Amino acid sequence: MKQTTAASLAVVFLIGGPALAATGRDIAMQGTKNGAAPCSACHGNNGEGQATAGFPQLASLNAAYLTAQLASFADGARINSVMGPIAKALDDVQRKAVSDYYASLPIPETKAGSPVTAEIEAGALLANRGDWGKGVPPCAQCHGSLASGVGAAFPRLAGQGALYTANQFNAWRGGTRHNDPMGLMAGIAKRLDANQVADVAAYYAAEPNLSATQRAGSAEKPTQHGAPAVPAAASAFAPPPEGAIPDNDFGKMVRLGEEVFYNTQIYAEQYIGNNLQCSNCHLDRGRLAGSAPLWAAYVAYPAYRSKNKHVNTYTERLQECFRYSMNGKAPPDGSDVLVALEAYSYFLARGAPVGVDMPGRGFPGLDQPAHPFDYAQGEKVYAANCALCHGANGQGQSSVAGKPVFPPVWGAHSYNWGAGMADIGNAAAFVEANMPLSQGNKLSNQAAWDVAAFIDSHERPQDPRFAGSAAETRTKYHDSPMSMYGREVNGILLGEHSPPAGPQ
Amino acid sequence: MKQTTAASLAVVFLIGGPALAATGRDIAMQGTKNGAAPCSACHGNNGEGQATAGFPQLASLNAAYLTAQLASFADGARINSVMGPIAKALDDVQRKAVSDYYASLPIPETKAGSPVTAEIEAGALLANRGDWGKGVPPCAQCHGSLASGVGAAFPRLAGQGALYTANQFNAWRGGTRHNDPMGLMAGIAKRLDANQVADVAAYYAAEPNLSATQRAGSAEKPTQHGAPAVPAAASAFAPPPEGAIPDNDFGKMVRLGEEVFYNTQIYAEQYIGNNLQCSNCHLDRGRLAGSAPLWAAYVAYPAYRSKNKHVNTYTERLQECFRYSMNGKAPPDGSDVLVALEAYSYFLARGAPVGVDMPGRGFPGLDQPAHPFDYAQGEKVYAANCALCHGANGQGQSSVAGKPVFPPVWGAHSYNWGAGMADIGNAAAFVEANMPLSQGNKLSNQAAWDVAAFIDSHERPQDPRFAGSAAETRTKYHDSPMSMYGREVNGILLGEHSPPAGPQ
Repeated sequence: MKQTTAASLAVVFLIGGPALAATGRDIAMQGTKNGAAPCSACHGNNGEGQATAGFPQLASLNAAYLTAQLASFADGARINSVMGPIAKALDDVQRKAVSDYYASLPIPETKAGSPVTAEIEAGALLANRGDWGKGVPPCAQCHGSLASGVGAAFPRLAGQGALYTANQFNAWRGGTRHNDPMGLMAGIAKRLDANQVADVAAYYAAEPNLSATQRAGSAEKPTQHGAPAVPAAASAFAPPPEGAIPDNDFGKMVRLGEEVFYNTQIYAEQYIGNNLQCSNCHLDRGRLAGSAPLWAAYVAYPAYRSKNKHVNTYTERLQECFRYSMNGKAPPDGSDVLVALEAYSYFLARGAPVGVDMPGRGFPGLDQPAHPFDYAQGEKVYAANCALCHGANGQGQSSVAGKPVFPPVWGAHSYNWGAGMADIGNAAAFVEANMPLSQGNKLSNQAAWDVAAFIDSHERPQDPRFAGSAAETRTKYHDSPMSMYGREVNGILLGEHSPPAGPQ
Repeated sequence: MKQTTAASLAVVFLIGGPALAATGRDIAMQGTKNGAAPCSACHGNNGEGQATAGFPQLASLNAAYLTAQLASFADGARINSVMGPIAKALDDVQRKAVSDYYASLPIPETKAGSPVTAEIEAGALLANRGDWGKGVPPCAQCHGSLASGVGAAFPRLAGQGALYTANQFNAWRGGTRHNDPMGLMAGIAKRLDANQVADVAAYYAAEPNLSATQRAGSAEKPTQHGAPAVPAAASAFAPPPEGAIPDNDFGKMVRLGEEVFYNTQIYAEQYIGNNLQCSNCHLDRGRLAGSAPLWAAYVAYPAYRSKNKHVNTYTERLQECFRYSMNGKAPPDGSDVLVALEAYSYFLARGAPVGVDMPGRGFPGLDQPAHPFDYAQGEKVYAANCALCHGANGQGQSSVAGKPVFPPVWGAHSYNWGAGMADIGNAAAFVEANMPLSQGNKLSNQAAWDVAAFIDSHERPQDPRFAGSAAETRTKYHDSPMSMYGREVNGILLGEHSPPAGPQ
């Protein structure tokens, strides 16, 4: 045992440098000479925290996240009578050292087999499905599907003590914590009620012990606080709740369709050529009015599309999504992936009138901008509102576990030039209604247009209809002021050097 | 001119025998010595009739039909003060002779270019679409699509004078004509109002001069007496009227689907292997509640089917119809035939709620029979109620023009053993609700079961899932008291010697 620890430390020494690593561990275990108490006194010898006292786990959290929290305690962005003085007593080097130390510790072990309460079940639904009727996306949409954390801004939640988590919601709501980027958590905390906070906190405390089914929320049973599947617009169509999926062969196909829809990387791997999920553009798993809900699309097909100049069935419309938005290839007619997506769409549309243009279809109409959209203005909007999640270079972000969480919005792993989202008007409408996630209608009309133009002025995978040159392809398929394809931006002729499209 | 007539007569002499042909023409032109006036006095020198006086065209009408009418005038089944005495004055040989003579004459020429009135347009709709809301099928469904006549019971209507046609409706309604088989025309005459009678009579008088579009009825424009697309059950869903099909590319696909549906022999020739049209089982072109309307089916898919043990999209369900009911092969995914049928179904379902089991779907439920169904009883029911149209040997009937009009119900040109209609329960339910055409619910419950069992106790094309022997195929696919497949009837092991299925 002693030997193993010595060996581990040796590795740390080699990587982090002996002095720094020793300092981080020393601070954690012994405190500092100028008055910082040892972290381990409250957070435990292995960074496991003390759940009942509300002292959080620190082990394995992102180092930059931890450093940022210490800075917040020091500058008052997190008001805490215990942590404030400690953080102030640490200098920048010490803060980094102790953060690196805790980040290096393994995830604390948890006891298996704790009972799954109704509270945990409700929390699982909220964590993994959200409460879109209140504008609350699932926690997993930013923190990763197993809440393993994403980057420096979205910490791991799994295993965190319930009291600590609940306290944070209260702090965001009450204003004693306001270091959340773009006020994202403050907005969400204000929309949740006390029961929901308790539920989600209980869920994440139990998460490491749960089976996959429990994680997804046992949607069959009615939950304590009701189903979260209420659409945002009160007047919009309400698709049936998850629990209405029948327990039979048809229901299995519906569930498979839902899996394909939000776990596209896994369930439709062979048909996609980028890092997107269907649910990236169709929020709330295709339920949300104003983000191209499946129920509204389902009742609108077959329909003539000017894009390919013939009448498309719903099946073909789905295939087109794979070809363009997913930069992949169309799943074959009759394949499980397609039939499942169609069955899932049909289920969501239950009760909707066939052939009627449903309120909430597509993205809400957006007025033309007062001024022509502007790349430089869009760049600023992007940096302030989008880069946190989608990355400074539009590359998106994956979870610690390696699964794509935030979709790339340009570059080789994004939608290709043939996708609807590569049309500036579509992108602007989507952004205005839905972005930043949970903060729809925050941006001005002009800002939405500018940022959409900025995003769609970067290279992305080639249009699969490529006609030999960017100029020719623009003439045939992109002859619109809403497309930047074939135009020169920052010295790059867009489309001319696009990376090839994905699997064809 | 004279030479041509002489040559024609020479041909008639050679075929009909000189004495008989001479007699028929003599009677027509000169009358008989015992008091029958010359037919030509009223019906014209070429059998063209006198439209304004209400004297019908006789030229080219079916000979057996004409003979039967003379018999009816003689025995009082048609009460007519002029024709009664004449018919009585003719003996059987003379009646046959004069009938053969008129049947041999060419269809009278008509003046082209007469104007198409609103009356004619309304009549075209009635003649070719029916008024199913009143239980009136299209005239064309029995008399053939160009009203060219079918067999001895359904005379040619095209070119017949309007006054004569209108008089017949009045005679059927008033009881002075009751020689119509099974009272079919009396029933229909009682359901039509005076305007409708005038419309349809005007239409058939003008028919030879009309273009194909005018024949089909210019459904775009509202007609004088309203659209006929009211479903039979007042509570049933009402699909949108024909005139709601938009004039654009989508509308073109809907119209193509409708053509495929009732002109399947032409528009889906390569995919069918028998003499059926989709509209044979789905009456009123897929609109009629209780005869498997398309709108009810459309909103019920995707669905799991025990028949093939997986979830079927609507597309696949259509393909199965071709494979079994049409004894053909599935049109490929994405083919115009399939997309058009799906677009047509979608159009008919406009406003229907997705996923709801619609009243009128499929065939109405039928109680179990009081006694086990009986082949011998069914044979009697068939002879009395079905053979007139479907033929004594179930072979169906074609129009004079050679187009299938009445569908074969068994034998090589009917649906195959895998079709839903080969299930006795389905057939009984369809028959009870819809047969004889325009006389649904005429048969007793027991008679419907008996005749369904009789029909489905004959050979028909092989089940395309044939498993090597009738016994094995029965075990795998027909292990039900509702299927006669693999059972011995009249010494024939059904299925063992079924003719092969159509194009695969």
